[in-house]
Amino acid sequence: MTKKLKMGLIGVGRQGSNHYNNLLSINQVDLQYICDLKVDQSWKEKYSNIPHVVKDYHEILEDPSIDAVLIATSTDAHAQVVLDAAKAKKHIFCEKPFSLTVSDGEIANILRTVKENNVKLQMGFNRRMDPQFRDIYKQIQDGNIGTPQVVKTTSRDPFVLKKELIQRIGTLPYDFTIHDLDLARYMMGSNIKEIYAKGGTLIDPTLKSIGDVDTIALVLEFENGAFGLIDNSRQAVFGYDQRLEVFGSEGMLKAENVSKSTVELYNSTSESKKNPLPIFNERYHEAYVDEVKSFINSVQNDAPVVADGVDAVFAQRAAIATDESIKTGKPVKLDTEFEV
Amino acid sequence: MTKKLKMGLIGVGRQGSNHYNNLLSINQVDLQYICDLKVDQSWKEKYSNIPHVVKDYHEILEDPSIDAVLIATSTDAHAQVVLDAAKAKKHIFCEKPFSLTVSDGEIANILRTVKENNVKLQMGFNRRMDPQFRDIYKQIQDGNIGTPQVVKTTSRDPFVLKKELIQRIGTLPYDFTIHDLDLARYMMGSNIKEIYAKGGTLIDPTLKSIGDVDTIALVLEFENGAFGLIDNSRQAVFGYDQRLEVFGSEGMLKAENVSKSTVELYNSTSESKKNPLPIFNERYHEAYVDEVKSFINSVQNDAPVVADGVDAVFAQRAAIATDESIKTGKPVKLDTEFEV
Amino acid sequence: MTKKLKMGLIGVGRQGSNHYNNLLSINQVDLQYICDLKVDQSWKEKYSNIPHVVKDYHEILEDPSIDAVLIATSTDAHAQVVLDAAKAKKHIFCEKPFSLTVSDGEIANILRTVKENNVKLQMGFNRRMDPQFRDIYKQIQDGNIGTPQVVKTTSRDPFVLKKELIQRIGTLPYDFTIHDLDLARYMMGSNIKEIYAKGGTLIDPTLKSIGDVDTIALVLEFENGAFGLIDNSRQAVFGYDQRLEVFGSEGMLKAENVSKSTVELYNSTSESKKNPLPIFNERYHEAYVDEVKSFINSVQNDAPVVADGVDAVFAQRAAIATDESIKTGKPVKLDTEFEV
Amino acid sequence: MTKKLKMGLIGVGRQGSNHYNNLLSINQVDLQYICDLKVDQSWKEKYSNIPHVVKDYHEILEDPSIDAVLIATSTDAHAQVVLDAAKAKKHIFCEKPFSLTVSDGEIANILRTVKENNVKLQMGFNRRMDPQFRDIYKQIQDGNIGTPQVVKTTSRDPFVLKKELIQRIGTLPYDFTIHDLDLARYMMGSNIKEIYAKGGTLIDPTLKSIGDVDTIALVLEFENGAFGLIDNSRQAVFGYDQRLEVFGSEGMLKAENVSKSTVELYNSTSESKKNPLPIFNERYHEAYVDEVKSFINSVQNDAPVVADGVDAVFAQRAAIATDESIKTGKPVKLDTEFEV
Repeated sequence: MTKKLKMGLIGVGRQGSNHYNNLLSINQVDLQYICDLKVDQSWKEKYSNIPHVVKDYHEILEDPSIDAVLIATSTDAHAQVVLDAAKAKKHIFCEKPFSLTVSDGEIANILRTVKENNVKLQMGFNRRMDPQFRDIYKQIQDGNIGTPQVVKTTSRDPFVLKKELIQRIGTLPYDFTIHDLDLARYMMGSNIKEIYAKGGTLIDPTLKSIGDVDTIALVLEFENGAFGLIDNSRQAVFGYDQRLEVFGSEGMLKAENVSKSTVELYNSTSESKKNPLPIFNERYHEAYVDEVKSFINSVQNDAPVVADGVDAVFAQRAAIATDESIKTGKPVKLDTEFEV
Repeated sequence: MTKKLKMGLIGVGRQGSNHYNNLLSINQVDLQYICDLKVDQSWKEKYSNIPHVVKDYHEILEDPSIDAVLIATSTDAHAQVVLDAAKAKKHIFCEKPFSLTVSDGEIANILRTVKENNVKLQMGFNRRMDPQFRDIYKQIQDGNIGTPQVVKTTSRDPFVLKKELIQRIGTLPYDFTIHDLDLARYMMGSNIKEIYAKGGTLIDPTLKSIGDVDTIALVLEFENGAFGLIDNSRQAVFGYDQRLEVFGSEGMLKAENVSKSTVELYNSTSESKKNPLPIFNERYHEAYVDEVKSFINSVQNDAPVVADGVDAVFAQRAAIATDESIKTGKPVKLDTEFEV
Repeated sequence: MTKKLKMGLIGVGRQGSNHYNNLLSINQVDLQYICDLKVDQSWKEKYSNIPHVVKDYHEILEDPSIDAVLIATSTDAHAQVVLDAAKAKKHIFCEKPFSLTVSDGEIANILRTVKENNVKLQMGFNRRMDPQFRDIYKQIQDGNIGTPQVVKTTSRDPFVLKKELIQRIGTLPYDFTIHDLDLARYMMGSNIKEIYAKGGTLIDPTLKSIGDVDTIALVLEFENGAFGLIDNSRQAVFGYDQRLEVFGSEGMLKAENVSKSTVELYNSTSESKKNPLPIFNERYHEAYVDEVKSFINSVQNDAPVVADGVDAVFAQRAAIATDESIKTGKPVKLDTEFEV
Repeated sequence: MTKKLKMGLIGVGRQGSNHYNNLLSINQVDLQYICDLKVDQSWKEKYSNIPHVVKDYHEILEDPSIDAVLIATSTDAHAQVVLDAAKAKKHIFCEKPFSLTVSDGEIANILRTVKENNVKLQMGFNRRMDPQFRDIYKQIQDGNIGTPQVVKTTSRDPFVLKKELIQRIGTLPYDFTIHDLDLARYMMGSNIKEIYAKGGTLIDPTLKSIGDVDTIALVLEFENGAFGLIDNSRQAVFGYDQRLEVFGSEGMLKAENVSKSTVELYNSTSESKKNPLPIFNERYHEAYVDEVKSFINSVQNDAPVVADGVDAVFAQRAAIATDESIKTGKPVKLDTEFEV
C-alpha cells in the first residue's frame, strides 16, 4: 500500500463541499486541513473529524507534512493561491476556471513557478474524467472512428442559478460553456481557431441586467479543419442534460445522459421514468472522485496530470471568444499559441 | 370508396424511380402515364403495366382525364413544368428544390398561376411526413415541450455522390442542407433570420473543384429568437444518419435513427447490429408514401398541402444563405417576408 | 410482372376483416370473392369493389378462375373447408389452429388429400413472419448464437376477451399459447417432448366458469435437450406484450416490443411514451401481410410454405399438453412423431 | 459523525477477498481483524495495514472491542461460526447459503440464540441491495404495477466454474439458483409453495460426474397464486447475464443488464459494444458495498436487516426443492411455515 496523501482543502463553499465529501471517501487521501474564510467555532465542532480547521490558507502551506492542496475558493482567488502553493512546494489541484481577469502573461508566470518548484498542477475539468466521456476519448485514441471530423456537446443545467451566484462564479460562457469548449478541444486533440456564438435570454430576460444569457448555440472550427457544435441552456426541466458525440471518418461515438436507474416501467399511461441525473455532483460523482484519484496518481508516480494550466488557458480563451462573438455578432478568431 | 386519382409521373430517374414504386403501392392512385426524356421502345416493354409511356409531358397535360402530376425531373425543369401543369389545371406534386436559378419574382408569378387555376401544389419535403418527425411535430403542437427554444438536426449521407450527379442536383447546401433548413423552420414555426455556416472538405478534397463541400456545421437564429444547429456530412460509414431534437421550456423531444430490426445480438465480441437504415428511400419509405397520400387527401378534400411553394421559397433562401456564409465566412441575414 | 393471384376470402369476422384489408393492399392479389355466412344485401353494397360477395364457399371452389383461398372461418369449420378446397385444387392459406376436435388420423387424411391434389397449404402462424422474429430465426440459422439452448417467449394480450368469443375461438392454451409453442419449436428446430404448465385466474376469476385461465407459466423440454419458458397473460395494461429471446452456446438474441414511434419525450415528470403497439393487427401488421406474400411466392414458385399442416399438428399437441398439465398438475410427455 | 464499526472478516477466499476490498472502501468500517485458515507470516506482511491477521476466529470473538463480524468462510462452517459469534454478542453478517446440511431444527436453534443475544444477523443475499432491483422493489411497494402476478429472473454466469470449486460451494441450485429463488420471493412478498425444475448439461456433460447441471429452467407458484419463471446457465459467452422482470395488474417493471459504459459506437461493421459487466463482483459492486452499509445501519439504529435467517431458510428450502424436482422429474411442494 502506497502512503496516503496528506491534503488540505481550501474553500468549502458550493463546489468545495462537493470535494469535501469526495475526499473523505477516497482511501488514499488523509484530509488534514479544511480552510475557509467563514471558519468560526461552529465549523470546528461540525468538522471535529478533521485535525485542522483554519481560516488562513497560509497555515496549510506552512505545514511541512502537507503534500497537496485542493483549491475551491472563489474564482478571483485561484491565481494567487496557486502561486503561493507552488512556492510552498505543494502539489495543486485547482478548480476551473483559472481566472477571469488575469492576463496570459501573468498566467505564464504562475505556470513557470509551478514548473520550477516541480509540483503538479491539475485543473478541475472534471468532465475529462467522466467514465462515459473517458470511454469515448479512449475509443478515439484506439482509432475506432478514424479521423474525428465533428464534435457535438450539449450541456444544460436543471434550473437558472441566482443572479448573485452568477456574478460570483461567472456568466454562462465562463462558468458553463468553458467546460464544453475544453471537452471539445480535448476530444479532438486540436486547438480552436474560430468561434461563432449566438446567445439569448429565452428563459429569463432579466439576466440581461447582469450581462448574461441563458441559451447559447455556437459553431467552432479547429486548427485541423474539424468542426464543433455546442449548445447550452440554463434550464432543462427534465434534469442535468449532458451529452457528447464525436463523428469521424470511420464511425461515430455517442454518450447519452446517465440515469439513476435503468429500470423500465410500463403502465397504462406509458410513463417510463428515465430522466437524466438531476444535478452536477450526482451526474459527475465518479468524475469528481476519479479526477482526484488521477491527481494523486500523478503526484505519486510523477505522471502527467489529466488537465494542466495550459489547458486552462485555452479553455479560457475560448470562453472569452464565445462571449465576444455573442456580443459583437461576429465570428472571432483565436490565438492557438501559448508559451510558458 | 373515393374515386382513385388518375396520375402521371414526369421524370423517372433516381428520385422518380423511387416515386414510381411508391405510386404503384398506393391503392388510391391510378398511374396512367409515365414520362421521361429517355423513353424509347424498351421502356414501353418494361412498363407494359402502365397505359401510357411518353416522352413529352405535354401529352399528359393535354389528357383531360388526368387529375394530377408528380414532377421528378431534373431541378432546372421544375419551374416550367409546374407552370405548364398549373395552366392545364392539374394538381401538382413537385420534388424539391423548386429551383436553383429562378428569381423570387418569377416564383411568385408561378405561385400566383397555381392559385388562379385553383390547383394544389405540394413540394416534396418528405421529411415533414416521416412518422418520427411527424410525431415530434404533433407533440410540439400539443404543447408537450412548451415553447421550442433550440432545434438540432443531423443529416449524413452514407457515401459521397459522384461529381456528375452533384452538378446536376446541386451542391450540399442546395441538395441536402435545404431539407434540414426546411425541417428546422417547420418544427419551430418561425422564419429563419440569420445563418452562420462553416463548410469544409474533410472527406474528399477534390470536391473543391466543383465548388462543393462535404461537411457543414451551422448555427441559425429564428425570427422568434430561438436557435438552430445543423450538421451535415456526405459520408457516414455506418449508414444514413438522420436525427432531430427539439428542446423547449417544458421538455425535449428526440428522434434517433431508425434501424431495420431492433433485435439485439450479444456474443463474445459484443457486437450488436443496430445501424441506421442505409439509404434515403429505405429510411424515408413511409414518408415518401405518406407525402403522396397526404397530397391525394389535399386534392380530394381541398385541404392545405403539407409543404407549399412558399415553404420552398424559404427553404431555398436558407440554402443560398448557407452557401454564402460558407463562402464569405460571415453571418448572413435573411429576408423573412414573401408576397405571392 | 408475374400474374396476380385470383383469390377468395372465406370468413370475414374478427380475423377475416384483418386479412381483408391486407389482401387489398397487396398488389399481387386480385381478390375476386369474399364469403361469409352472414352475407346479405347490405354486404354487397358495402363491398361493391369486390366482384363476388357470396354466402356459400362452394361457389368459390367451383369457379375455375380462382387460384387460392384464405380460410378465416370459425375454427370448427377449418378442417372441412380445407378438405373441400384441396379437392377443388385450390391453394390454401388457413388460419390456425387447424382444429380443436379433429383426430390426428383425420388430419393425416386431410394432409394426404392436400398432397395428392398438389396444392399448397399454409397455416396462419403469423409470428413466424414477423420481421423481428424472422431476423432472430435467420441469425440462428447463420450460427450467430451457436447451438440454441434456451428459448423464452412472453405473450400478453392487452385486455381480457369476452367469454362468448373465448368459447368460439378456444381457451388460452388453444388460442394464445399455441402461438408461443409453435414459435418456440420453430426457433429451436426440435420437437417438444415434455411440458409442465401452471395456469391460474389472477385477473378474472369468473373465467373458471368456462374452464379457462388468464395466466400461464410453463417450462418445456425439446427432443434435443434444450429448454423453453413461456408466459402468457390475458391482460397487460400497457399494450400487446410480445417478446422473444433465444440463448445459445455462442450468444443471445433478443426481440423487445415494437413501439409506434421511437421518439423520446423528456419533461419534468419524466414521462417517456414508448409502449408496445396496442393490439395484434397493428403489432403483427407486417407479419400478416408478409405471410400472404410468402404464400403467394410458394404458390407461384412451388416453394415450401413457411408453416404447413404438420407444424399445425405439433402446435396443437403442445396446446393440448399445456391444457392437460394445467389441469392435472403434472408434467405431460408429447408424441414427437407424425406420419402423413 | 457516528462512531465507526469495529469489524472482523472471517474467511478471505474468493468471496471474502471481494468483501475485504469493499470493507476498506466504507468509511464507517474500522476493519480490525482478518482471519483465515491459510494465514501465515506472508499474510501478515501482505495485510500490514490491518491490525490483526489471525488464523482462529475465536480470537476475534474474544476481543471485547469488536462490534461485528463478516463471515465468508466455506459454507459448511457458516452455522457454527454464526452460533459462536451470536454467543459472543457480535453482530453478524453471513454469506449465503446458511448451510447445505444443517436441519431446520438446528437452524431454528441458532436463530433463537441470535435473538436471545440481541444481535443482528444479516444474510448475504446481495441482489436485494442491487440499485436496479431495489428500484423495482420500491416501485412494487409504491403500487406502480398493482398486484404482482408473474416474476421472471435470468441469471447466467460468464463461464463454467472448476469442478473442485463447485464441490466446495455447492451445485447450481444451491450456489446460484438460490439467489434467484430468494430474489423472486422477496419481490413477490409471498412464500413459494411449488417448484417444477428442469436441469440439463447442455454446456459441459462432464458435470454429471459431480451430480451437477449447467442449465436450469423452472416454473414456480407462490402461496398467493402468483407465478415465477427462472432460468440459469453456467456460461453466457457475452458476460454475467442478470435480469429481473415483474409483471402486475397495473404494469410491468424490467431491469436489463448493466454495462460498464453506455457509449454507443457506430461503424461500418455496425458493432456496438454494450455487453453486460463481465463478473459478479463488478456487476454487484454497489450491492456488495450497500449490503454492508445497510447492515451497519441496522446495527447502529437497531433497524431490521434486509435479509435475515428466516429468509435464508426459505431460500434454502427452494434450492433443495429445485434440486429434487430436477432429479425426480416431478413438481415438488414446499413447506411455507417456519417457527424460530
